[in-house]
Amino acid sequence: MPKQRIITLLTDFGCSGPYAAEMKGVILNIAPTATVVDITHDIPPGDILAGAFVLRQVLTYFPAGTVHCVVVDPTVGTDRRIIAAKYAGQIIVFPDNGIISLVEQDQPLEQIAVVRNQKYFLTPAVSPTFHGRDIIAPVAAHLSGGMAMDRMGPTPGKFKLLDIPAPSVDRDGSLVGRVIYVDHFGNLISDISADLLQQTWSSAPADVEVVLAGRSIGPLKAAYAFAEPGEPLALINSMSLVEVALNGSRACDSLNAGVGSEIRLTRRGR
Amino acid sequence: MPKQRIITLLTDFGCSGPYAAEMKGVILNIAPTATVVDITHDIPPGDILAGAFVLRQVLTYFPAGTVHCVVVDPTVGTDRRIIAAKYAGQIIVFPDNGIISLVEQDQPLEQIAVVRNQKYFLTPAVSPTFHGRDIIAPVAAHLSGGMAMDRMGPTPGKFKLLDIPAPSVDRDGSLVGRVIYVDHFGNLISDISADLLQQTWSSAPADVEVVLAGRSIGPLKAAYAFAEPGEPLALINSMSLVEVALNGSRACDSLNAGVGSEIRLTRRGR
Amino acid sequence: MPKQRIITLLTDFGCSGPYAAEMKGVILNIAPTATVVDITHDIPPGDILAGAFVLRQVLTYFPAGTVHCVVVDPTVGTDRRIIAAKYAGQIIVFPDNGIISLVEQDQPLEQIAVVRNQKYFLTPAVSPTFHGRDIIAPVAAHLSGGMAMDRMGPTPGKFKLLDIPAPSVDRDGSLVGRVIYVDHFGNLISDISADLLQQTWSSAPADVEVVLAGRSIGPLKAAYAFAEPGEPLALINSMSLVEVALNGSRACDSLNAGVGSEIRLTRRGR
Repeated sequence: MPKQRIITLLTDFGCSGPYAAEMKGVILNIAPTATVVDITHDIPPGDILAGAFVLRQVLTYFPAGTVHCVVVDPTVGTDRRIIAAKYAGQIIVFPDNGIISLVEQDQPLEQIAVVRNQKYFLTPAVSPTFHGRDIIAPVAAHLSGGMAMDRMGPTPGKFKLLDIPAPSVDRDGSLVGRVIYVDHFGNLISDISADLLQQTWSSAPADVEVVLAGRSIGPLKAAYAFAEPGEPLALINSMSLVEVALNGSRACDSLNAGVGSEIRLTRRGR
Repeated sequence: MPKQRIITLLTDFGCSGPYAAEMKGVILNIAPTATVVDITHDIPPGDILAGAFVLRQVLTYFPAGTVHCVVVDPTVGTDRRIIAAKYAGQIIVFPDNGIISLVEQDQPLEQIAVVRNQKYFLTPAVSPTFHGRDIIAPVAAHLSGGMAMDRMGPTPGKFKLLDIPAPSVDRDGSLVGRVIYVDHFGNLISDISADLLQQTWSSAPADVEVVLAGRSIGPLKAAYAFAEPGEPLALINSMSLVEVALNGSRACDSLNAGVGSEIRLTRRGR
Repeated sequence: MPKQRIITLLTDFGCSGPYAAEMKGVILNIAPTATVVDITHDIPPGDILAGAFVLRQVLTYFPAGTVHCVVVDPTVGTDRRIIAAKYAGQIIVFPDNGIISLVEQDQPLEQIAVVRNQKYFLTPAVSPTFHGRDIIAPVAAHLSGGMAMDRMGPTPGKFKLLDIPAPSVDRDGSLVGRVIYVDHFGNLISDISADLLQQTWSSAPADVEVVLAGRSIGPLKAAYAFAEPGEPLALINSMSLVEVALNGSRACDSLNAGVGSEIRLTRRGR
């Protein structure tokens, strides 16, 4: 059993009402010394892709043993399952609605279990509208305390994955991806990674031109402040992903782009 | 003295400024090992009923020994009192402005004290605009450490309660209540509980029809996803209250309803 | 080394995305038993003055040994430095962009170091867009554990300070300042302190009249509730600063004022 017990919450509950706090209370009842960390409660309601993106991004930085409660769950109360799984020494408890898709792309999950054992639920009479509180939170608290994963339930066959197109190489040699997340600053984050750039062109991308939905943004720059205020720029962001931003304002608004907008990288020298 | 010291904050301070953090600092100065939990800081400014609702809802889930700081306090600096009281093994410190009303409906408070002993204040020179920081936070930290309630001050006579109408049975046998809270998803939560349904009709409510402000919403469903996207539905929510929602969008906007709107339950077979 | 390790976060990252949580993960990896406290993540993007104001305000209330991570950092990735310094027994790690200005006005910083020692970075390959995660968070975690400040790097010459005009005394004897912060309630907070009032007029300010951008607000009142709903009022707020507010609504909107608006205090008897 780890001495330090970190349990995180990633939800679309917002911060104004009781839902996130109810989960914290349930967790602290079972694991009184746990450190409960808010990842975010402001995933747009029901936005599974945004939840999947934030989940993948934060996992890199938490210590082994951390247990993550993921509750973006628009089909709560139907027969969609709840899954618990290990990933890089951490544990994720999540609804089987595709929210694990981006994590799974990086590295296969381990010790996957369908959460069925009512012994670890808050109550056998779970609310059909709040599995986060009645199942995910208490199960996470028990797993955080060292409970074996296989006591939660059987191994699932497959789990649900979102149909997310991968970036591809166009006939003219361009690398074509799309915006998959818009951040708090309005920055447009694509699915094109620095690794993919390297693999595609086996050289530093000094002569790359970035095109957002048909509009040239120019070459990759090193940091936001290297564009004039209000000028669009592209860079490799802190997630090692190609991002289009505006220095000092919101690219999503000014460039009228969002999740799904095409981002194309071409070599200017060609 | 409890080993685990959980102190929560429920305020209308928002998260953008210093006020909530000032309270956290005061608490951690007195109780350095306390676990400080944000219930919410996004109660609409001065909305005592919303604060009362969220407070009642979260209390159910926190462990005995938890101390709750409640600061929705539009009359701060007047002669309204600050009260500390026990409820189900937990302690609540709150302004005497009615915010305890819904908690008090469920179960009487115990060991009630008017908070007057300046020894437990941050400073004898309390700011007339921020009793949350100067009185409620330090008093909560001291109570969390095991300080006896009766050292805080005298027993109050009565405390202030909001004038909240109770659901009633209409002449045609309908159960008539109203929306008392609109949640982050725009769901309209009523004051009609599953218990009240059972008491009123002594049977499972299979043939109940829900009517919101004169508009039929249909029977009670099991979960949000059992309505078509955009279709209104009613269900017993995770608080065991009748709720009107829209699958995938905001009922409060689409149905043009809010706190105070009538919710009526009738038996279709009659 | 302090037993209790409090590490705070003050950023403009918002709460919807991964950035704040990435910092929490980095901190908890290095300092697993630390208490991580959110000051705020809702400083308006890039608003250094607002960050400076909130920072100064909260410092007063945290215990000695607390380490504060300050990340309002629009010029991240340029050659602006990162500084660590002690202030009243606490430690602040911040970008050298002026955000320390208001703290520095109160009391000089001590043990100031330019953060350069890559040994305490998350990685030698820091992202040019996220020094908060790659430098400030890990350095804060190491400093919280008792690491000596001078191991971080050399002493800076000067650091950057915002050009913030001080309140002044006008030819007619009025005290003239300006709004420097608008809070969550829309209250207009000025740079005129209760101390300054005392120093200027060496008496209690009973006959002072407050004028906001040419409009008389009246004398200083004791608390918000002593004005009629919707009526403007001025008071000495919980920060000991002159503030203009509206009982029950947003002064900034109703009075069409904001950061920079003049606030003038005159003696009516003169």
